[in-house]
Amino acid sequence: MSDPPAGPRYAKGHGTENDFVLLPDPDGELKLTGARVRALCDRRRGLGADGVLRVVRAGGLDEELPGGTNPDTWFMDYRNADGSVAEMCGNGVRVFARYLVETGLAARGDLPVGTRAGVRATHVHDDGRVTVDMGPVTAHGLSTTRADGHEFSGLVIDVGNPHLACVTELDVRTLEITAAPTHDPAVFPHGVNVEFVQPVGPDRVRMRVHERGVGETRSCGTGTVAATLAGLRAAGADTGLRTVEVPGGTVEVEVTPTTSTLTGPAVLVAHGRLDADWWERYESD
Amino acid sequence: MSDPPAGPRYAKGHGTENDFVLLPDPDGELKLTGARVRALCDRRRGLGADGVLRVVRAGGLDEELPGGTNPDTWFMDYRNADGSVAEMCGNGVRVFARYLVETGLAARGDLPVGTRAGVRATHVHDDGRVTVDMGPVTAHGLSTTRADGHEFSGLVIDVGNPHLACVTELDVRTLEITAAPTHDPAVFPHGVNVEFVQPVGPDRVRMRVHERGVGETRSCGTGTVAATLAGLRAAGADTGLRTVEVPGGTVEVEVTPTTSTLTGPAVLVAHGRLDADWWERYESD
Repeated sequence: MSDPPAGPRYAKGHGTENDFVLLPDPDGELKLTGARVRALCDRRRGLGADGVLRVVRAGGLDEELPGGTNPDTWFMDYRNADGSVAEMCGNGVRVFARYLVETGLAARGDLPVGTRAGVRATHVHDDGRVTVDMGPVTAHGLSTTRADGHEFSGLVIDVGNPHLACVTELDVRTLEITAAPTHDPAVFPHGVNVEFVQPVGPDRVRMRVHERGVGETRSCGTGTVAATLAGLRAAGADTGLRTVEVPGGTVEVEVTPTTSTLTGPAVLVAHGRLDADWWERYESD
Repeated sequence: MSDPPAGPRYAKGHGTENDFVLLPDPDGELKLTGARVRALCDRRRGLGADGVLRVVRAGGLDEELPGGTNPDTWFMDYRNADGSVAEMCGNGVRVFARYLVETGLAARGDLPVGTRAGVRATHVHDDGRVTVDMGPVTAHGLSTTRADGHEFSGLVIDVGNPHLACVTELDVRTLEITAAPTHDPAVFPHGVNVEFVQPVGPDRVRMRVHERGVGETRSCGTGTVAATLAGLRAAGADTGLRTVEVPGGTVEVEVTPTTSTLTGPAVLVAHGRLDADWWERYESD
């Protein structure tokens, strides 16, 4: 048996069940139209994913890069499932780094990854887990939200994007958060990601997250950082470590005085080639 | 660059957006546990699909086959996303036949496919569409259902499984059928698939379908056959042709005095190999 005429190479992977199609394109030669991104991410007529990660050297990108990005750096060209361009994704960058190592494009250990939010330091561990520098996390007072008939008070947190992280004694596994939790538009004029954070041990929290514009997700990288800071503050600390259980798995977060790191699994599911006819079908945007 | 240690080969495809993972396994050597089927079909931690189609020669199957199945016949070993075994799927068998031709395992044209419901005659056309013999379709009187605040009268139809096909003048595109349509348990003791069928031309109907135990789907092969018979009867005919528009695409159905055929698209999206570590992870059931 043989495979039909082959289009571009791809891989499928996930980090705590936030899933991605990776497209290796070192020299930036793929014509990645919005229609192609939407078709790739479509869970019926395509491969299905939350987003596409194009694997390209920074010098191969046809756009202005954040200052200091070396043209040889591997760049995570992240596209949302709707075809729009995104800056950074804490789960995606783990899968991206793992992919580089598993395919021999980079060596295990310390590995800088270019993103539209700047170059991120990552470290690919021997067990396949990946640590990524998530940048500074800061708290800016309190706000409230209503969800599932309860009122919650939470910490207003900035991890590059806005969060409201609410520590609660409720069992967050049974919370009904299909409907978007409310928020104070004076505090969050552009909406907010809301975390419900239940301490379940001295260094461990359980988290559910409602992402703005998306709904509940199985995992949210910046959300786990916000949840960790909220858990630390509830215990009277400003820095430290937390293990965070999300519906899609478990990660470790460390908050330091200057930055934060997220360590978690990165799973590669499959490698292959897109069907050439299928790929051609979505060339026009 | 290189791909990591590779597990089994696979392909991804869909027929009117009913999607499948195909696993070529000519000699029946794969250990296809329920856990592996569920992981393959999981849309976050796996590839994602409505079902798995193992591509095996009938002689390689470790189970008793319907009488008359030649051991060299290609057999569609169909598994539902929950890991259970299924008999037959009108959309799956099109993708299955197309896959055999595209990979050189069979020649274009007439191609018998073994299923647990018996051997089905298929024909792979030059344009990639596939015709499959769906077997006899019979009507057994009328029954009613309620959906979206409306009462519908429909034809009780047997296509190997039970259907209630309701011809209506309403625009079925705007029907709200998230909730299961009601049915008369005296007529349908094991539940029923309900089609809402809107004639939109002399030989053309538009259809929405609610599958028992599943909910609304983008397409249902036997449902399009039931919709065609209902559309024919509404026009005073017992046999004939209808083009059926479903949310996932368009198919043609012909009802004859002795059988029915379904002709529709079969799309191959990608070909590849599962990651060996990922595949091993789900060996135990």
